[in-house]
Amino acid sequence: MTDNSGSDWTLEQVQALDARDPLAECRDLFAVPKDVVYLDGNSLGMLPRATPARIAALIANEWGEGLIRSWNQADWINLPAKVGALIAPLIGAETWEVIAADSTSVNLFKMVTAALRMRPGRRKIITETGNFPTDLYVMQGLESLLDGVELVPVEAGDIFEALDEETAVLSLTHVNYRNGNIHDMAALTKRAQAVGALTVWDLSHTAGAMPVDLNDSGADFAVGCGYKYLNGGPGAPAFLFVADRHQDEVDPPLSGWMGHARPFDFDGAYEPAEGITRNLCGTPAILGLAALEVGLEIFSGVDMDGLRVKSMALGDLFIDLLDQLCGDHGFRLASGRDCETRGSQVSFCHDDGYAIMQALIAKGIIGDFRAPDVMRFGMTPLYTRYRDIWDAVTGLAEIMDSETWRDPVFSERAAVT
Amino acid sequence: MTDNSGSDWTLEQVQALDARDPLAECRDLFAVPKDVVYLDGNSLGMLPRATPARIAALIANEWGEGLIRSWNQADWINLPAKVGALIAPLIGAETWEVIAADSTSVNLFKMVTAALRMRPGRRKIITETGNFPTDLYVMQGLESLLDGVELVPVEAGDIFEALDEETAVLSLTHVNYRNGNIHDMAALTKRAQAVGALTVWDLSHTAGAMPVDLNDSGADFAVGCGYKYLNGGPGAPAFLFVADRHQDEVDPPLSGWMGHARPFDFDGAYEPAEGITRNLCGTPAILGLAALEVGLEIFSGVDMDGLRVKSMALGDLFIDLLDQLCGDHGFRLASGRDCETRGSQVSFCHDDGYAIMQALIAKGIIGDFRAPDVMRFGMTPLYTRYRDIWDAVTGLAEIMDSETWRDPVFSERAAVT
Repeated sequence: MTDNSGSDWTLEQVQALDARDPLAECRDLFAVPKDVVYLDGNSLGMLPRATPARIAALIANEWGEGLIRSWNQADWINLPAKVGALIAPLIGAETWEVIAADSTSVNLFKMVTAALRMRPGRRKIITETGNFPTDLYVMQGLESLLDGVELVPVEAGDIFEALDEETAVLSLTHVNYRNGNIHDMAALTKRAQAVGALTVWDLSHTAGAMPVDLNDSGADFAVGCGYKYLNGGPGAPAFLFVADRHQDEVDPPLSGWMGHARPFDFDGAYEPAEGITRNLCGTPAILGLAALEVGLEIFSGVDMDGLRVKSMALGDLFIDLLDQLCGDHGFRLASGRDCETRGSQVSFCHDDGYAIMQALIAKGIIGDFRAPDVMRFGMTPLYTRYRDIWDAVTGLAEIMDSETWRDPVFSERAAVT
Repeated sequence: MTDNSGSDWTLEQVQALDARDPLAECRDLFAVPKDVVYLDGNSLGMLPRATPARIAALIANEWGEGLIRSWNQADWINLPAKVGALIAPLIGAETWEVIAADSTSVNLFKMVTAALRMRPGRRKIITETGNFPTDLYVMQGLESLLDGVELVPVEAGDIFEALDEETAVLSLTHVNYRNGNIHDMAALTKRAQAVGALTVWDLSHTAGAMPVDLNDSGADFAVGCGYKYLNGGPGAPAFLFVADRHQDEVDPPLSGWMGHARPFDFDGAYEPAEGITRNLCGTPAILGLAALEVGLEIFSGVDMDGLRVKSMALGDLFIDLLDQLCGDHGFRLASGRDCETRGSQVSFCHDDGYAIMQALIAKGIIGDFRAPDVMRFGMTPLYTRYRDIWDAVTGLAEIMDSETWRDPVFSERAAVT
C-alpha cells in the first residue's frame, strides 16, 4: 500500500493514503491534543474520548452514591474478568483465559513462578538478553528468591539452541521494546514444549498493536500491559493469560483473597478459585480497570488484520521518508526494514539520539528515547495518520538541517525518558 | 463525652454532641449521599468532594494533553512517594519511610519476604489465627513457596508465648477486622525484637481511623490499605513502611523496574534504588494514586488525638443505644466494651446477622457482615455524626421489633458481603 516504487514521497501522496484508510474514523474516538504529533502510544496510549465521562460517572454514582454496594450493584467484583474477556480476542485467547490485575511486573512474577512450580527438578529460565528490563529484573529476583532457579539470558538468535532438558520456562517479550523485532511465538513455543518446558510470553508491545494468536501458537502463559496500545491510561492494570489446560494446575505464589474460591466466607485457609480467577491477589483497582475497559471497547469491530496492514504501512512510510529527508544525518535503522519482522514501531540509533528526541518533543513531535542511543517511534493504527508520519519526519529533518538539537537545553536529562 | 450516667439517650442529647463536635466541618468535605447512614467506611471510604475535579483534570489535562510528558511535567513519577509522605504523619513514620504501591496483599508479600530474608536460619512466621484472611493466605503462600518457612497462627492471647528464638517474623493486623480489637504494638514489637524477630504490622483498619506511632513502637515493617479510612476510592493503591534503619537491607522479592536505582538507564542488571523506592515494582497506578492523594489531603490539620476521642465516643454511643433499644433481640457484643480496646468500629454477633444486615442496608443503613455471624459498624470520625449512630440504631430497632428482616429476600447471598 505504501509502495512508492523507490521515488520520493509527496505530501499529496501521503494524504491520499489517509483518504483511503479504513481505520481513519477510529481517530475520532480519541482526544487528540492540538499541535502534537504523537508517536509514543507504545509508551502511553492516547485518551479515548469516552473515558472522562465513564470515570466521572463511576466516581459520582458508583463510588459516591453506591459506595460499598457497588461491588455487587455495579458488578465491580467481576470487572477484572470482564476486562480480561475484552482483551482475549485481541490475543487469540478464550474469554475465560485472560484476567486484568496488578502490573505487568507483578503478573510476570506470578506466571513465571507458576510455570516453575509445574516443572519441579528443572532449574533454567531461558530469556533474551535484550528483554525489557523489568522482565529481567523480576526473573533475577526469582533466581535469588527460589533455590535451584537459574536465569539464563541469551541473544535472540541463540534461544532455540539454549532450550534443553534442564529448561523449566522460556520467558520472552514477543515484540522487543527497543528495536521492535518480533519473536516467532509458534516456533519457539513448539521448541520449548518439545524439550518439556513451558512458555511465558510478555505481550506488552503486541496486544492491540498487531494480531497474535496465543492458542494457535500453543502458548502456556502470557502477560501484558494495559497502558500502551490498549489505551487504558497511566499505570493501567495489566493482564495475564493462562491456557485453559493449565488453569487447574496453577499454584499461585501471590495467594491473596481475591483469588480465593470463596473470598467472602472469610475462611482461614487458602483455597484457590476455579479457573483464571485464582491469579488475582488483592482488591482490584476499580478506577484503572474502568478506564482500561473504555480503551478496549474501541477495538470492538476493528479488524486486527487490517490494523496490522496499516501499522506496517505507517512504519514503511517512516523509513522511506527518513531515507528521503534525513539520509545524511547519521541515523541507523535499528528495526527490521522488512515490515513483517517489526512490531508497530520503528527505531533508529543515533549517537545524539537523546538531544535530538528532546528537540523533537519541544516541537510537539513525541517519540521516546531508550538508552543508550535508541529513538523510538510508535505507530498506533487506531489514531496515527500517514500525515503524522510526514509531519514527524519533516520536523525531524528541520531539526537536523538547522542543528537546533545542539542547544544544550536538549541534553538535560529528565527523570523519565 | 458520651457518658450519659446510665440513663437513656434522647435525640436532643445526641444532637448536642454533634453541635459541639470539633470535627463536624470535615463532613462537608465529603459527598454524602442522601438517605444513607454510612457505617462502612472501614470497607470503602466515602468520596471526597474534591476527588471528581482532580481526577477529571488529571484525565483531560495530564493524560489527554500532556500524554507521556506528564511523567515529568506532572511529576507522576514521584506520586508514590508523595502519597506515602502524606500517609506518614498518620502512622508515626517519617515521610521517607512510606510509599504507596500495589495492593495490601502484594505489599504484605513484599514485607514479610523481606523480613524473612533478613533472618536466615529462622523458620517461623507468627501470626494471629483470626488475622484478616488475605494476610493468612499470602503467608500460607509464602510457606509453600519458600523452603524452611513455617506459618504459626496462634490465638491473640498466645502471641507473647509463641515468640521464640526460631521466630523470624511477627506479622499482625493492628486492629482486628472482625471484632475491632487492638494489639499492643509497642509491647509485641518489643517482645518480638527481644527474641531477635522482626515485625510486620498491617494497618488496614488503623491508618486514618486512630493515631498509631510506628517509630515510637519500634516497628520494623508495615503495610496498609488506601480505600478504607484513607478514602482513596475502590481498589485504591495500598502503602508500605520500612523503618529507616532497615531500608538498605531490604532485598525486594518483587524486583520490578520502578524499584531500580536508575530505571530509565534500561540496564539489564537489577540494582535496587536507595531507600523506600526499591519497594516499588511495576508502573504506578496514576489514577488510583491521585484519588488517594485527595483523600489524604483532608487529614491535613486534623488532630488525630481528637479524631480518636470522637471515634471512641461514637462507638460508646452505638453500644449504649443498642443496649437501650435492642437489648432483647439477641445481639452479642463482639468488640470490647471498653473503648480503649477497640479500633474505630463496633461489632455484634447475631445468629441471623446476615439477613438483619441486608434489611438494614435496604433501609439505607449501611454496615457490613463478616461470616459467619458478625455485623460490623465502622465509624469514620471525619464524616460520621452522632446523629448517624442514633439513626442507625433506631432503624435497627424498627427492623427487629417489626421482624422485617425475616423476609426471605434478605437471606439471599450476594457475591460480595
